[in-house]
Amino acid sequence: MTLPPELSAAVAPQHLLTDPDTVRPYLHDEAEWAAYGAAVAVVRPGSTAEVAAVVKACAAHGIPVVTRGAGTGLSGGANAVDGCVVLSTERMREIVETNPAERIAVVQPGVVNDDLRAAAAEQGLWYPPDPASAPWSTIGGNVATNAGGLCCVKYGVTRDYVLALEFVTAAGEVVRVGRRTAKGVAGYDLVGLLVGSEGTLGVVTEVTVRLRPLRTTIPRTVVGFFDTLAAAGEAVGRVTAAGLQPAAFELIDRVCLQAINEWKQADLPASSAALLLAQTDLPEPAAEQEAAAIHAEFEAAGATEAIMSTDPVEAEALFEARRLAYPGLEQRGEAMLTEDVCLPRGKLAEMLGRLEEIAAKHETKIATVAHAGDGNLHPLLLTKHGDEPAKLRAQAAFDEIVDTALALGGTVTGEHGVGLLKLDGMRRELGPGVVALQRAVKQALDPQGILNPGKMVG
Amino acid sequence: MTLPPELSAAVAPQHLLTDPDTVRPYLHDEAEWAAYGAAVAVVRPGSTAEVAAVVKACAAHGIPVVTRGAGTGLSGGANAVDGCVVLSTERMREIVETNPAERIAVVQPGVVNDDLRAAAAEQGLWYPPDPASAPWSTIGGNVATNAGGLCCVKYGVTRDYVLALEFVTAAGEVVRVGRRTAKGVAGYDLVGLLVGSEGTLGVVTEVTVRLRPLRTTIPRTVVGFFDTLAAAGEAVGRVTAAGLQPAAFELIDRVCLQAINEWKQADLPASSAALLLAQTDLPEPAAEQEAAAIHAEFEAAGATEAIMSTDPVEAEALFEARRLAYPGLEQRGEAMLTEDVCLPRGKLAEMLGRLEEIAAKHETKIATVAHAGDGNLHPLLLTKHGDEPAKLRAQAAFDEIVDTALALGGTVTGEHGVGLLKLDGMRRELGPGVVALQRAVKQALDPQGILNPGKMVG
Repeated sequence: MTLPPELSAAVAPQHLLTDPDTVRPYLHDEAEWAAYGAAVAVVRPGSTAEVAAVVKACAAHGIPVVTRGAGTGLSGGANAVDGCVVLSTERMREIVETNPAERIAVVQPGVVNDDLRAAAAEQGLWYPPDPASAPWSTIGGNVATNAGGLCCVKYGVTRDYVLALEFVTAAGEVVRVGRRTAKGVAGYDLVGLLVGSEGTLGVVTEVTVRLRPLRTTIPRTVVGFFDTLAAAGEAVGRVTAAGLQPAAFELIDRVCLQAINEWKQADLPASSAALLLAQTDLPEPAAEQEAAAIHAEFEAAGATEAIMSTDPVEAEALFEARRLAYPGLEQRGEAMLTEDVCLPRGKLAEMLGRLEEIAAKHETKIATVAHAGDGNLHPLLLTKHGDEPAKLRAQAAFDEIVDTALALGGTVTGEHGVGLLKLDGMRRELGPGVVALQRAVKQALDPQGILNPGKMVG
Repeated sequence: MTLPPELSAAVAPQHLLTDPDTVRPYLHDEAEWAAYGAAVAVVRPGSTAEVAAVVKACAAHGIPVVTRGAGTGLSGGANAVDGCVVLSTERMREIVETNPAERIAVVQPGVVNDDLRAAAAEQGLWYPPDPASAPWSTIGGNVATNAGGLCCVKYGVTRDYVLALEFVTAAGEVVRVGRRTAKGVAGYDLVGLLVGSEGTLGVVTEVTVRLRPLRTTIPRTVVGFFDTLAAAGEAVGRVTAAGLQPAAFELIDRVCLQAINEWKQADLPASSAALLLAQTDLPEPAAEQEAAAIHAEFEAAGATEAIMSTDPVEAEALFEARRLAYPGLEQRGEAMLTEDVCLPRGKLAEMLGRLEEIAAKHETKIATVAHAGDGNLHPLLLTKHGDEPAKLRAQAAFDEIVDTALALGGTVTGEHGVGLLKLDGMRRELGPGVVALQRAVKQALDPQGILNPGKMVG
């Protein structure tokens, strides 16, 4: 296909990629099982004006635009569709402003999550949303998926930190929504609508985030070991019902621990079915009291062992293990299908028990990590590459996990997004009435349907 | 006008009001200066099904539907338009569920804010959003305006607490959006879109809110007295920049203090230009440290006096004064135009100084209370009833306050909503591109334009 001249003129030649080998890495995210199509080109605009020129050119010719950040997504949301232009934000990585007086930062979408956190910390400020992909994923991608992370059990998700957005509309116009003030209700909340919309309503070109003062407390960590996943789920319910508020509350199961041990020659305790990691960040002595209360709930739920740690090195090793679970399992060379269901906290124990049954029923190895305090589970379904029957069994297990989560009042996606993998689950979760409203919103803001078509709302 | 039979059939006869004297109190909210029209009827549905029947009947006949809660709004958002049906949620005041395991509550829209807070407290839970109208205003109204309050400087606004909504669409269909889980990203955030939409996108019939554990700390209050409003604003900026996080941070000026003293025969300290009230709710001894740090910033900003109080009675008297400012001024028998601009915190001192200039220039008495920590100012413009020249001067002052806030990078409404009074300001704040997007959303969800027409997006 010959590219429209306006598109070729939109960016310098070295930022318009058409060579298949160069284009290939841009065609999909990390959702191994999601389909992707062939892009006509990859563009790497360096400014808002260039993004607008790209979108305007594509709009004029009905070319789909698939925007991507670092491509660490796990639902296929950034996967190319046939005939599309992939718009990569990789060159837009300027931290425009960090402002302690207003407690805000302004960044371009290609800024890496950890880089924003580091820049904020230099000013005594903290950007909480911390997906496990934080060393690589971009703020633009985080905004597109409304990314969560470990801290969100106490501090909220990306949406809770986005104050304003500059974005390019489906018609190629540049608009600014939101504000720099702490509050504001002038007009519908288009910021909230764009956050989590997976590039289907606009292409975000600048993000203004709210920051918190940097934490100065020394975290205390409580580790609990459990003989069954269900007992660990019970402990989570007890901690929540007791009114405790850990700043991170994670679960790692035996399969993950073993994988990390193998990969890193680590010596993580992999004899229990699961361990829970809870961290409190209150000032002392309240932290000690909260840690003791969490410890007591772990024991009451039947922990075989529970340990309060004040050693930051020891605690960090365990949280590092949590973050390494995904790459650790990847290292085993198995194909991996990542789940993201989120349950009402009171149903977590039941869901964790059901996961063990589903794994057995479908003869599929399932490794589970979880933002347990949020009820957000990431069962990872592992199969040998090339083992087609195993892949089909894993697919059946995946579907049954979704069905079970919905039956228990959960959602099909807690933080990874709908993308392609959860399209069917989303439709079942929302029902036809709400799906129709979703489509009406999409139609209103992208009447031509050129922005990331086929994702999010199908 | 003869009412359509479907409308008459939608509710029992005693809940369909057409007598002008009975209808009159339903025709407007507390925005004294906002226009209102003549309703053909008031309906008081008692259930979601009745709401749906009312909206369906109105949709079939093109009759506008103006939904109202307690009518405590200050922007005219609930004001009747000619030929409309006013839908009052007053009979829908059931607290359906309070659930400590999930930390949520489910309520009907007519539940009064303070009643939800009390019901939550019985279960050891806390619903933070606390507009000054909390003893009267309803959760439905709070959702419609995305209400703020005193706590939101640390704990966020209504939107941050709404997890799910049941609402009736413009076509009269009942839908549920959102979830009962802590997180979820399945589909566009229609909950966030509905919150703050002032009844223009749907009629909310049930609200699921997130709750926090009840606070158990004893608050410490720091009171600072300042000779100028600008010095008080400077103190707010210093506290913010120092990374302190008061759980309430209010300003009351001399005019308000004097009014409350007159009304309540109180003995509030009305000799300074303004006082600041900051409250910390950290566990001890962190609270003592934070209070001392706030005190130091007050003194550094030039407070004539600053007092740390551990006496809850004394502190509560001052916060009560803050809440009484509005009714206190009302008691003076003057007409009152309420402003709601919100400024970047770093511009607060400048804006407070400009307010004094605007009052002098337009010979208008302005009493100011503020959620100072958020930069959210409520200048109250006072005029004698019937003094038309004074009213015109006040209107000019109102416009200049809006202009000044916009010029300083603020928003025209921090928490009261656009309604009618801020329509023009909203258009100027957002600009034509964003206004067009707002209208596209409205058109998508209410193509016939029957839901609260003329408000919010004009």
